[in-house]
Amino acid sequence: MGLGLISGSLAGALKAAGWQGKLVGWGPRAPSLETGQSLGLIDHFSLDLDEVLLAADLVVIGAPPRATAQLLSEVIDRATQFGDPVVTDMASIKGFIVDSVTTHSPRFIPGHPIAGSEHSGVAAARPDLFQGREVILTPLPESDETALAAVEHLWMTAGARITHMSVADHDAALAASSHAPHMMAYALTAMLEGHELAPMKHGGGALRDMTRIAASDPVMWRDIALTNRSALLEAMDAVAAEHDRLRALIDGADADAIEQFFAQCRQLRRDHDEILNPLISADEVSGR
Amino acid sequence: MGLGLISGSLAGALKAAGWQGKLVGWGPRAPSLETGQSLGLIDHFSLDLDEVLLAADLVVIGAPPRATAQLLSEVIDRATQFGDPVVTDMASIKGFIVDSVTTHSPRFIPGHPIAGSEHSGVAAARPDLFQGREVILTPLPESDETALAAVEHLWMTAGARITHMSVADHDAALAASSHAPHMMAYALTAMLEGHELAPMKHGGGALRDMTRIAASDPVMWRDIALTNRSALLEAMDAVAAEHDRLRALIDGADADAIEQFFAQCRQLRRDHDEILNPLISADEVSGR
Repeated sequence: MGLGLISGSLAGALKAAGWQGKLVGWGPRAPSLETGQSLGLIDHFSLDLDEVLLAADLVVIGAPPRATAQLLSEVIDRATQFGDPVVTDMASIKGFIVDSVTTHSPRFIPGHPIAGSEHSGVAAARPDLFQGREVILTPLPESDETALAAVEHLWMTAGARITHMSVADHDAALAASSHAPHMMAYALTAMLEGHELAPMKHGGGALRDMTRIAASDPVMWRDIALTNRSALLEAMDAVAAEHDRLRALIDGADADAIEQFFAQCRQLRRDHDEILNPLISADEVSGR
Repeated sequence: MGLGLISGSLAGALKAAGWQGKLVGWGPRAPSLETGQSLGLIDHFSLDLDEVLLAADLVVIGAPPRATAQLLSEVIDRATQFGDPVVTDMASIKGFIVDSVTTHSPRFIPGHPIAGSEHSGVAAARPDLFQGREVILTPLPESDETALAAVEHLWMTAGARITHMSVADHDAALAASSHAPHMMAYALTAMLEGHELAPMKHGGGALRDMTRIAASDPVMWRDIALTNRSALLEAMDAVAAEHDRLRALIDGADADAIEQFFAQCRQLRRDHDEILNPLISADEVSGR
């Protein structure tokens, strides 16, 4: 439901892995669904929510946080009246999503694939987007085992590895590992925009990487910022505190402390090279 | 002089382009020079500075800022007594370098190739590192035209494009486009290190890119931070101000202003895609 980069890539990954069963797209408007069908990502599509839910075994919602929250309550509400399909979502925040569901269902498994791009839309979909990537599931106390197993099977078929976390831990960890870094890229880009020397023209690989995600979808990131607000503000403050600490060391010309600060960072980053470096780059994702 | 990633890549680029003339390496110790020779980047090497300077037409110093500054005065001093070769450097800051030269020479052309990697050492050298990259030259009032032309020819042969800037503009622009972004990557990595949920384990492409340069050489970056201190502090403060501004919008849940902030950043980044996106990624440079 909602065919874009992520859900289109999931459909493509399932197709590539020989997924048994029909892949049916639903959305409020036809164009992206038509694109998805012409790209061979989905078998067919419908604009009729009831028609899709009646036939579904497993429903995957692919939409920005607010749209996911709105759609989820309606989907769970109707689904429980029909064949009670398993329902999962892919939104980047989980607390807001879970809190906004009005009808609780043991068949709903909240999820979040750690994969994305500054590009959006089904045309940028790529079947290997999830290969080796982490998918965090945050099953709820009422979630049933067969529903969880179905969602795990879905993502493992797409090539992902599964992690379980609590809703709160997910939102705090992602605020630090993804949401706050996006805010830093935005802050850096905004600073460069106002600079009289147009420094972005003189950017190297550092600037390429540090600003890439500033081209992300503004509406999705507005939603993430607002729906994970308290965890995000906490992570932003923690980054700002480290930035201030480093600034003070530089201002005080404390050479040894600066070198130690940098050396510790080098070590931590290298310790995570195996997790981070194999990730598909966005340029590859977009085909550019 | 000083054979590492950058100077090794320059030597390799000249070789690949059929450079006329011998490429001779000099350094205080043999190992990296032996590696450079065995990789075919240089023709031979010497540990004797006078021997190298006596025979040189063009001297390229490849060292971190402080080492460059120390070496440069000695090199210019002796060079003017010998055949008066053209001398250039590749340090990431220019004011500190120019200020530290005790013997002024019209044959010295300060330079800075905008290319690098979080990896270091001649073994990571890559002949295509400068292909299409910018090299900023900051000729001095006393610089002579033939020396400038020789350095421009060198870099154009290596595939780079040449820009001229004043020393002060260079340092201010690079503080914003490179040095401050490095400090952000360090601050982010330090924050993640102290986080109880180990968020780096759950990193995606955003975290990969936003922390890559935190693995850069600690000594070189300590030098850059200290030798371009005032411009860097100014750029860090400008970034922090934008980060604070964004934080206030999120705290105030100002959805429209947040979306507008992000949309402007997306536009600015996309306007610079042609400059930034073709750059060789560091993983490619390192062969990893």
